[in-house]
Amino acid sequence: MNQEYAYLALESWLLQQLQTGRWQVGERLPSVRMLCRERGVSKATVIHAYQRLEAQGRIEARPRSGYFVCAPLAAVRVSDRSDESTLIPQPVPVTSSELLTDIMMQGAAFDLLPGQQAPYLPAGLLLLNRAIARALRQSRGVSHQSYEEPAGFLPLRQLLAQRYQRDACQVTADQLCITSGCQNALYLALKASCQPGDLVAVESPGFYGVIQLLETLQLKVIEIPVKSGVGMDLKALERALMHWPIRACVVTPSFATPGGTLMPAGEQQCLLELAERYDLVVIEDDIYRELSFAGRLSPLKARDTQDRVILCGSYSKTLSRDLRLGWAISKRWHARIVYLKLMTQLASSHYVQQGLYDYLNSGEYDRYLRHRVTELYGQAQDWISAIQRRWQDQIVFDRPQGGLCLWVTWQCPIDTLALYPRALQQNVALTPGPLFSASGDFRQALRLSFAQPCTAAHEAALDRLQGLMHQ
Amino acid sequence: MNQEYAYLALESWLLQQLQTGRWQVGERLPSVRMLCRERGVSKATVIHAYQRLEAQGRIEARPRSGYFVCAPLAAVRVSDRSDESTLIPQPVPVTSSELLTDIMMQGAAFDLLPGQQAPYLPAGLLLLNRAIARALRQSRGVSHQSYEEPAGFLPLRQLLAQRYQRDACQVTADQLCITSGCQNALYLALKASCQPGDLVAVESPGFYGVIQLLETLQLKVIEIPVKSGVGMDLKALERALMHWPIRACVVTPSFATPGGTLMPAGEQQCLLELAERYDLVVIEDDIYRELSFAGRLSPLKARDTQDRVILCGSYSKTLSRDLRLGWAISKRWHARIVYLKLMTQLASSHYVQQGLYDYLNSGEYDRYLRHRVTELYGQAQDWISAIQRRWQDQIVFDRPQGGLCLWVTWQCPIDTLALYPRALQQNVALTPGPLFSASGDFRQALRLSFAQPCTAAHEAALDRLQGLMHQ
Repeated sequence: MNQEYAYLALESWLLQQLQTGRWQVGERLPSVRMLCRERGVSKATVIHAYQRLEAQGRIEARPRSGYFVCAPLAAVRVSDRSDESTLIPQPVPVTSSELLTDIMMQGAAFDLLPGQQAPYLPAGLLLLNRAIARALRQSRGVSHQSYEEPAGFLPLRQLLAQRYQRDACQVTADQLCITSGCQNALYLALKASCQPGDLVAVESPGFYGVIQLLETLQLKVIEIPVKSGVGMDLKALERALMHWPIRACVVTPSFATPGGTLMPAGEQQCLLELAERYDLVVIEDDIYRELSFAGRLSPLKARDTQDRVILCGSYSKTLSRDLRLGWAISKRWHARIVYLKLMTQLASSHYVQQGLYDYLNSGEYDRYLRHRVTELYGQAQDWISAIQRRWQDQIVFDRPQGGLCLWVTWQCPIDTLALYPRALQQNVALTPGPLFSASGDFRQALRLSFAQPCTAAHEAALDRLQGLMHQ
Repeated sequence: MNQEYAYLALESWLLQQLQTGRWQVGERLPSVRMLCRERGVSKATVIHAYQRLEAQGRIEARPRSGYFVCAPLAAVRVSDRSDESTLIPQPVPVTSSELLTDIMMQGAAFDLLPGQQAPYLPAGLLLLNRAIARALRQSRGVSHQSYEEPAGFLPLRQLLAQRYQRDACQVTADQLCITSGCQNALYLALKASCQPGDLVAVESPGFYGVIQLLETLQLKVIEIPVKSGVGMDLKALERALMHWPIRACVVTPSFATPGGTLMPAGEQQCLLELAERYDLVVIEDDIYRELSFAGRLSPLKARDTQDRVILCGSYSKTLSRDLRLGWAISKRWHARIVYLKLMTQLASSHYVQQGLYDYLNSGEYDRYLRHRVTELYGQAQDWISAIQRRWQDQIVFDRPQGGLCLWVTWQCPIDTLALYPRALQQNVALTPGPLFSASGDFRQALRLSFAQPCTAAHEAALDRLQGLMHQ
């Protein structure tokens, strides 16, 4: 028998013996030496098999006494309880329906086909994973006995600050706090700068994660319309500012989801002037900017001479959603953000930060990004053709200049929210317009992503959607 | 020249040329082909060097035009600003002094010698790191395009639930939510079950992370004394419950920091009866239980027939503080906890969960734990001898039955908080008693950890401490 698998063979033999009741619960198992003799295997093999069974909760080790049979586990309990819990009322938040949470989870995949998984990892991500794995291999007892500095690994913060400086944004490492992704950065930024009951202006349509986060933080939402090609309507924002004591404004100047709009430079300047005049905290969601089709852009924060902007970013949209690493940048609010991070999660993993640092520093990220942006540009054109072929005169949308999505509004009366469950039955995962508003508007709109290539399967999904709309 | 380092040599030559002004800001750099000829290197070498310079922000690539010199970065800005920001008043939380935060960060290392780092990684942790690295290598495009299920990776949740079942605690995977460490679990548990202004009972002395977290969540703290060998004084708790509408109680039944007490079974039962009578949410901090010197213990949650306990755990204290992975278990509050996690951080990394699952499942964790507990038992005896040799008649403490620390109270009048900065000057990192109370009590106590072996350097640190006390 192959020595490598001897312990697995022994493990399954032991399991069989346990099942047939050779040893009763509480009874002592044969000693390692006895079992070596009985089964003709090495001591290491017996110990390995016993340890695996112990990890599974089948047997337990008692100091200086050997191994004993445990009571059988209620293995079916998980599914039992699962059924039960759907019947018992649970304390769920009143403002978010299960349907919306479901759509949110599906929508986060940015794919019209539900449950799709890329068959392989792009080379750029393979290198990222290798960099993190290398950081793990090279950790020498540095990190397991202490927590990383709450603000995060300094070399990574310096490198990220440098990258912003390259984009004309003069931020420094001591203004940057590493977070568990961009949603976590938005949470910390809002929590640091607002009190429960405060009013916060958001884009409408806008990112559902922000709207729900505001509700969770007991902040009040004021929706400001987004204008085609312009972004948040600053005239509407100013009217709101004149009437209400608005504390903060969450805005995505570059390729906001779902609209995909790039806010022109003049508008960005004007927004900062309003912030100054009305003492507004501006929270910039900066996760799509690097996905620009026309070269590098500066964030809004680059124009922020009055330290009014808290910039929130991550590489979830450019690199990997599984990295769970983002940042919040602000001089004014930095100490408070770091303190809140310390309170709510102590620190971030060192090895992930070290791995990301190495990856960025090698130049591989920029290489991957260039390739990815070219790919996204091509995919955007394909998706636009695909929808124009089907709905030419019935839809309006802006041609994207970057980002991951198209915001498509039908001019005939359709209800995309009602369409969602029917489409899902036909294996089409829609992201309906009402998900992007606290007031349930945009029933005639869908967010359509070009993060995936428009394959034959996607074309077929669009056909099914067309069929459903005509029913 | 070694081919492997050719790009580094070219990079430093290019940097030199940039510094001497061979090319001006905005000027085009030589094409890849030209530079190959000029420097006698391969195309790959030139591209690699250019990419590294691009990542550093020295040059930029423009599509179909080549590489151009960027404006120099304000490289000294980081330290400049750093100085500046210490002068400008920052919005810092009023309730937490910088001294306490400093002590907290030092104390988290559980070492009397500041800034110490283990020279090597224990074999058990090496295997954990390998398991995570393997999970990274094996990810096949599954995870980078979507977020993990908010509650966490189901197989890991099932395995963790099984481990609790093995300790007579009948919880199931659908009650368990994976979090960013135990502090994050405590945050989610408190946030899910309490409203701002609610009263929360805590142990005194108790974990500083909880006291500060309560302040952050705008909850009011009621400190309940801890009795030697018993844990939270339940008579005192009941008196408080009769007088105040206390909403929740945070308790560490097994080897609480700093006291290290193991709450007897009868007391645990009594606590749950009080919880039932006074409609109390019990939040169990369960991070030290597996470090028991006398065999496996059950958590308080095992006796919780009324679903009043939210169990919070992690492997930070048994395995690695850098894992940043914990869990919160409750049937009643599960949906709310998962929703809050989704709102504040979306999800946890898949590969870390997969790696931890593989490591637990292989039996290596149990093996590591057995070894670690034996080691800690020995170290505890050494530390006890070391302090008894120095302060025999001046101190009181309980002999630990597990965990990582001793709570040592001097009977002569000393002030450990005042001692802290003086000790740090002599390279001794104390964890003073007042850190473990909202009211600043316990000035005559220190938490002393036996997480490290009591080396000659530690003995010398104790000598310095003794000298300071006699000054």
